[in-house]
Amino acid sequence: MSFVRQFGGGTAEGRARDKALLGGKGANLAEMASLGLPVPPGFTITTEVSRHVLEHGAGSYPAELAAEVDHALARVEELTKTGFGDPANPLLVSVRSGAPASMPGMMDTILNLGLNDITVAALAKISNNPRFAWDCYRRFVAMYGEVVMGVVAPAEDAELPFDVILDDIKRTHKANRDQDLTEVALREAVQRFKAEIHKATGQVFPDDVKTQLWGAIGAVFRSWGNPRADVYRKMHGISASMGTAVNVQAMVFGNLGEDCATGVAFTRNPATGTPEMYGEFLTNAQGEDVVAGIRTPEPLPELGKKLPAAYAELVRVAKLLEGHFRDMQDLEFTIQKGQLFMLQTRNGKRTGKAMVKIAVDLVAEKLLEPREAVLRIEPSKLDEVLHPTIDPKARPASIGKGLPASPGAAIGRIVFTANAAEEWAAKGETVLLVRTDTSPEDIHGMKAAAGILTARGGMTSHAAVVARGMGKCCVTACTSLRVDVVKKTASFLGGGKELKFKEGDTLTLDGSTGEVFVGTLPLVPARLGEELGTLMKWVDELRTLKVRTNADTPTDARTARSFGAEGIGLCRTEHMFFQPERILAVREMILANDEAGRRAALAKILPMQRGDFAELFRVMDGLPVTIRLLDPPLHEFLPHEPHDIEEVATALGKPVPVIAAKVAELSESNPMLGHRGCRLAITFPEIYETQCEAIGAAAAEVAREGIEVLPEIMIPLVMVPEELRRLRALVTKAFDKALGDTKIPYTIGTMIELPRACVVADRIAEHADFFSFGTNDLTQTTYGLSRDDAGRFLPAYIDGGVLQVDPFAVLDPDGVGALIELGVRGGRGVKPDLKVGICGEHGGEPSSVELCHRMGFDYVSCSPFRVPIARVAAARAALQAGGTSRK
Amino acid sequence: MSFVRQFGGGTAEGRARDKALLGGKGANLAEMASLGLPVPPGFTITTEVSRHVLEHGAGSYPAELAAEVDHALARVEELTKTGFGDPANPLLVSVRSGAPASMPGMMDTILNLGLNDITVAALAKISNNPRFAWDCYRRFVAMYGEVVMGVVAPAEDAELPFDVILDDIKRTHKANRDQDLTEVALREAVQRFKAEIHKATGQVFPDDVKTQLWGAIGAVFRSWGNPRADVYRKMHGISASMGTAVNVQAMVFGNLGEDCATGVAFTRNPATGTPEMYGEFLTNAQGEDVVAGIRTPEPLPELGKKLPAAYAELVRVAKLLEGHFRDMQDLEFTIQKGQLFMLQTRNGKRTGKAMVKIAVDLVAEKLLEPREAVLRIEPSKLDEVLHPTIDPKARPASIGKGLPASPGAAIGRIVFTANAAEEWAAKGETVLLVRTDTSPEDIHGMKAAAGILTARGGMTSHAAVVARGMGKCCVTACTSLRVDVVKKTASFLGGGKELKFKEGDTLTLDGSTGEVFVGTLPLVPARLGEELGTLMKWVDELRTLKVRTNADTPTDARTARSFGAEGIGLCRTEHMFFQPERILAVREMILANDEAGRRAALAKILPMQRGDFAELFRVMDGLPVTIRLLDPPLHEFLPHEPHDIEEVATALGKPVPVIAAKVAELSESNPMLGHRGCRLAITFPEIYETQCEAIGAAAAEVAREGIEVLPEIMIPLVMVPEELRRLRALVTKAFDKALGDTKIPYTIGTMIELPRACVVADRIAEHADFFSFGTNDLTQTTYGLSRDDAGRFLPAYIDGGVLQVDPFAVLDPDGVGALIELGVRGGRGVKPDLKVGICGEHGGEPSSVELCHRMGFDYVSCSPFRVPIARVAAARAALQAGGTSRK
Repeated sequence: MSFVRQFGGGTAEGRARDKALLGGKGANLAEMASLGLPVPPGFTITTEVSRHVLEHGAGSYPAELAAEVDHALARVEELTKTGFGDPANPLLVSVRSGAPASMPGMMDTILNLGLNDITVAALAKISNNPRFAWDCYRRFVAMYGEVVMGVVAPAEDAELPFDVILDDIKRTHKANRDQDLTEVALREAVQRFKAEIHKATGQVFPDDVKTQLWGAIGAVFRSWGNPRADVYRKMHGISASMGTAVNVQAMVFGNLGEDCATGVAFTRNPATGTPEMYGEFLTNAQGEDVVAGIRTPEPLPELGKKLPAAYAELVRVAKLLEGHFRDMQDLEFTIQKGQLFMLQTRNGKRTGKAMVKIAVDLVAEKLLEPREAVLRIEPSKLDEVLHPTIDPKARPASIGKGLPASPGAAIGRIVFTANAAEEWAAKGETVLLVRTDTSPEDIHGMKAAAGILTARGGMTSHAAVVARGMGKCCVTACTSLRVDVVKKTASFLGGGKELKFKEGDTLTLDGSTGEVFVGTLPLVPARLGEELGTLMKWVDELRTLKVRTNADTPTDARTARSFGAEGIGLCRTEHMFFQPERILAVREMILANDEAGRRAALAKILPMQRGDFAELFRVMDGLPVTIRLLDPPLHEFLPHEPHDIEEVATALGKPVPVIAAKVAELSESNPMLGHRGCRLAITFPEIYETQCEAIGAAAAEVAREGIEVLPEIMIPLVMVPEELRRLRALVTKAFDKALGDTKIPYTIGTMIELPRACVVADRIAEHADFFSFGTNDLTQTTYGLSRDDAGRFLPAYIDGGVLQVDPFAVLDPDGVGALIELGVRGGRGVKPDLKVGICGEHGGEPSSVELCHRMGFDYVSCSPFRVPIARVAAARAALQAGGTSRK
Repeated sequence: MSFVRQFGGGTAEGRARDKALLGGKGANLAEMASLGLPVPPGFTITTEVSRHVLEHGAGSYPAELAAEVDHALARVEELTKTGFGDPANPLLVSVRSGAPASMPGMMDTILNLGLNDITVAALAKISNNPRFAWDCYRRFVAMYGEVVMGVVAPAEDAELPFDVILDDIKRTHKANRDQDLTEVALREAVQRFKAEIHKATGQVFPDDVKTQLWGAIGAVFRSWGNPRADVYRKMHGISASMGTAVNVQAMVFGNLGEDCATGVAFTRNPATGTPEMYGEFLTNAQGEDVVAGIRTPEPLPELGKKLPAAYAELVRVAKLLEGHFRDMQDLEFTIQKGQLFMLQTRNGKRTGKAMVKIAVDLVAEKLLEPREAVLRIEPSKLDEVLHPTIDPKARPASIGKGLPASPGAAIGRIVFTANAAEEWAAKGETVLLVRTDTSPEDIHGMKAAAGILTARGGMTSHAAVVARGMGKCCVTACTSLRVDVVKKTASFLGGGKELKFKEGDTLTLDGSTGEVFVGTLPLVPARLGEELGTLMKWVDELRTLKVRTNADTPTDARTARSFGAEGIGLCRTEHMFFQPERILAVREMILANDEAGRRAALAKILPMQRGDFAELFRVMDGLPVTIRLLDPPLHEFLPHEPHDIEEVATALGKPVPVIAAKVAELSESNPMLGHRGCRLAITFPEIYETQCEAIGAAAAEVAREGIEVLPEIMIPLVMVPEELRRLRALVTKAFDKALGDTKIPYTIGTMIELPRACVVADRIAEHADFFSFGTNDLTQTTYGLSRDDAGRFLPAYIDGGVLQVDPFAVLDPDGVGALIELGVRGGRGVKPDLKVGICGEHGGEPSSVELCHRMGFDYVSCSPFRVPIARVAAARAALQAGGTSRK
């Protein structure tokens, strides 16, 4: 068992599959070398050594390591016909980290290692370019001084001493840019850098190349444990015990003349997926110059004109690697004196659109099976295909950042009330509704707006849920935002400054990142191409989990059906109550002093609700429609501001103090845990009775039109079985009465959205035809976390790594998931065929959908625009579970 | 296997232990008969028959039953030397229900059965009292008409037709009272009753005595299923499948002359426990007359003067039965012509004081072992011994009813603000603080008041928790109460009326029942007698569960120690923040814009907190003190009313809008699920740091005085293990720094008060030395039920039988308990010796304490005045578990 694996010269001791041992970079270098591709020779010190160091302390290596490195180095010398430290023909190497998981920029790299006062002269002679040699040397000394010897900036925001020195030299030598520095100036830099190192560390810069090498190796291993890398690993769930590999590789130079070049290449267009070579390069340059932005790189096809032979070779290699890895590749290459060298290959990052097109194209090209193509799809990236996005080429700094509550981008003039949104929209303006927070009374304004921005809230607060339902861009919990409704201003605080905007100013929102920008940014529209259709066909054949939608209106239902929804999993009846012509009757109902008064008011709402339900049933012909009976606390329907109270008092012909007293009486300390859900029906049974009469009448009416109606009545917030037992009887009676002679199969179930309901699910199941897990509320109660208030501290939790993700966005498998499993097991223990679904916002989040599949759910339900995402996630879950699903 | 069991004539086919088969009444009648006591002979139809009827329908009896009843009846005839339906010497019987569990008044009874137009004449002749005979007859016909034949009142609130007829007869016969009715009038009543029965039911009143008997038996079985009984069973957790027995027994008459009597007797005084005959009787009367209140019964000792022989016999029987049942008995007796007959015996109900005295006396009398005496104690009744109570002899109708939030009684003049309470109290007035709800800002007013009454809240709302801590009477959730702070009035609504009171009016509160009374009622003071001390000594020897107290002040801690507390299980540090000289610094801390500002303000609080902790440690010398770090959301410390905001602005020298803006910024939709608990310390670590410095410094100071200090630092509201991991490190660092060279053993643990914490308890336990289950919040989150808001609908849940008990008062074993068990199992799975306790309000509720014992807890913690109750409950739990406890 060797700790060092060689690559180069047409062979390698390792392959792409050896990532755990060789790291991602090392494994792919080995793979390329094995394929006979032009890779500068080198070797990889395995992650095993890193783990040895983690265990035994810095600098403690396995006994065999030194000899193995010497042996590997000798082979590199042989292949390159150079000698490490050779005064006439020196070998220079790069020393790079390479972990099994991608951790870009998190660890350290040293280039040009092997230079000292003697070898630099040889390099000058061989290259016939003394300035080049000394430039390499000064870069190496600075890099080594910082990374290996630990020279640091004197204060957190200060420049590194090497940069200070270089600036000084530029001044004295009257050089504007780095490349204007002469050999003399660069020689001075090397001297002064070394002096600085000695002053700062008390150590002398090592001339011995072996000492240099082992210093660099030690530094890379050490960098595995640096705080930056530590935070990154925590954020991405990478195990710290994995360790990193170290890649030592012969240097090649793209900056030895006009027959040299360096660049990056994608085997397909990563923005569009078009099969074409894509990338950029610089002639006579080193790799870091391409990123540094000092010279403008040229688009890749130009390379075909400048260095046609090397370009043809690059195209050949690209084609070969793509076929080999069966995916679009992201390549790094250098051309030294006309000869192509490959420095890296990896699967390329891409936009959502490119992701879909490449996956479908690769199937057409017979490189992938459809099932493999589906596994290549990151479901959450489909958002980009379904919504317009900000053109990535034109993205300035943001002025504020909140939670990405509903994806897509929106541009508009800002307004601060729902009424203003409606008024401006009526005048033909595109507006953004900017609020401290939204409430159900703002819905008409949200409808009128192109996007919503709130200072409060979270991923599942009112604004977020409603906006997602509408497929509208929304940013919530933008904590630096202050809204003054009276003065009609919005301010963004940050860095001790305040950016103030007034009504009518234009902002751009990015609902996919949570960012806010000043003015109008260019957007890229959404287009559901042909490829998406092909992909979704495969997806639907592969998945077993059904995907329904959360929809309260016929419009939403139609949208969702067009996105492939297989029914409605959640129709929230309360939204129907907020329409202007109804809210008055609703308030009359709430203000009534007795059952008779409530019934009289409810009778006014009944015909309107009946019409809503009938239309929903028509749209969902043949598909199930789950209707949740009234859920929110009654005070949500009452006005709270004095002038609104006056208005309502006038409309209802009641004294203002009566209304005000009722508002005060109904107000709650914690409405989320208050008099809501089925608790309303235990105290006021007539509310659910009336609702069921409306649903039943609508079902009968539509069924008589020859349409297939499949109503599922859902009772929310059950905490004890007795609630459901009683309300099931009430629902059955009212529904049967409304159906009359018309026979319609309907079912009655419950939302499982309280921890107690999960625990006693077996006894609840006795009275339920189905369970629908309401994971928004279940997450709130399981965590003891209000989604409307969490915005104030949840970002600190996530930024600080106390939580990995927002549990309202991604279903928590350990806590909430464990309770759900308890609930499913309890319910199915009593009724093995109990239908189980989810109707929380998690139903559209890919990893949550996969969790639902693993827990044996029958369906997920999500907002219309997330239906395609859920379908893909369901297919991926089925593939990953290897057919262990329930059906 | 017989369906009928006989008793009487010195023998019986059954004993007291056969309650499941014979019902409570039947089993005790059999027991008395077996003991040779004078019991009118009769027989019991077993519960088996009731279950047969439940299964096969009304009127379906086992085939053997008719013959067995005939046989048993013949024996009764033989023993009484009468004949059932005999025209000359008729046997009359009573037919009574008797379930295995006591269900007083829930089912039906028929007396004087066996009368018809012929036997009534015989009875008239034998008794030599025709009026008596016809009075028996008309009572029987009416009772039978209602119970068996189903004659009902024409409307819910209307009188029964029989009562209407009797009133009419009284008018025409000019009789004022029932006893003024002549034989002629009574004859008319019987005729008209029968006619009414025929009119109402279409059936003829049966003359045949066997028909009468089977009708009555059927009615008793039927009455098991009546809605009243159904509700009662639900409320008391009695299984409906148990069924009832039917007791048929020869009638004896206490109303045949002055040598006859009827009465009830207790073998000891049920109010005081004094060993003396106690009860009342009427001569020449029937049993129902004693309760009816038409004549005033005489105290029992008078019977010794009037009927000395019969009384001597009663005393002998009473002594015998008490010795036999080894408990105070509640007897019903009738004396017919000088001869004593026993109609019932059962363990007598008693006050808390009598309960203690009787249990201790019975041990002294060698009738009980101490462990048996402890099992006779109902822990919750100890409240009566620990608090003053309203004299049961002077209890008018209440004007309002809320939840019995903190026991005892209080009388005082009502005030509506905390400041008014203080002012009035300073003037020497005893006051009751009456509020819509209380908040931490009201604590000084609660301290000044003798009792607290709130319109909102619940069993564990702020007012309830604080009042219990202070041992002060409190009634919460008095939903009919409306408080107008501005007008200084309180109104009680009810029955369409409004009772209005103004500041200074006097009310009486009963915190043990939740009732509110007008004016001053006489109170009975609490006295902890010698007997209680004896009892508690036994209790402490028997229990394994430790009992700690929830105490925030040295005063509370001293009280609790005097009640036997074995440490502090919960010291809430926030209460220390509310003292007037500190709240300003706390507000300064909250209003600070950065960490430095917060630290500066915290530094002002530190010395004061340090003093508090030092005194607590001194009081609890040698006992553990669990200190919970800051828990409530910061906005609880800020003012909310405009004039309060102005005051604070002035005091802090800040502009009003700055304070108002901060108040608005910090306000939360659901503060219970908001930025509180350890979430405060994740965002503002300096708060917990400062608290730990204060605790550590106090501990070191007191330890240097030679006092044993055992601090336990408790971190609230942990939802993910990472919170505890971080905060444990923070606490350790701050505490060790404060301790300096002083070595003190301290532990760090957490409250488990969120469902998620129960589910991931194994991973939390890695960072915890102890778990303290915060069952208030755990109940809130498990049920999704805010204790501050539940008062609005929880009473309807309990009254309607949807919930059996208030889950904030009694720990829910099925839901919350299941999660706690999960938590204990998880925690102890990782750390078998993990200390586990409870610090919610349930820690002082007997059945919850027993549940904690069964779940393997180390301790419970409760408010000081509940410590003795918890000690008794712990002992009972140990006895009932039969030594299966953990230690």
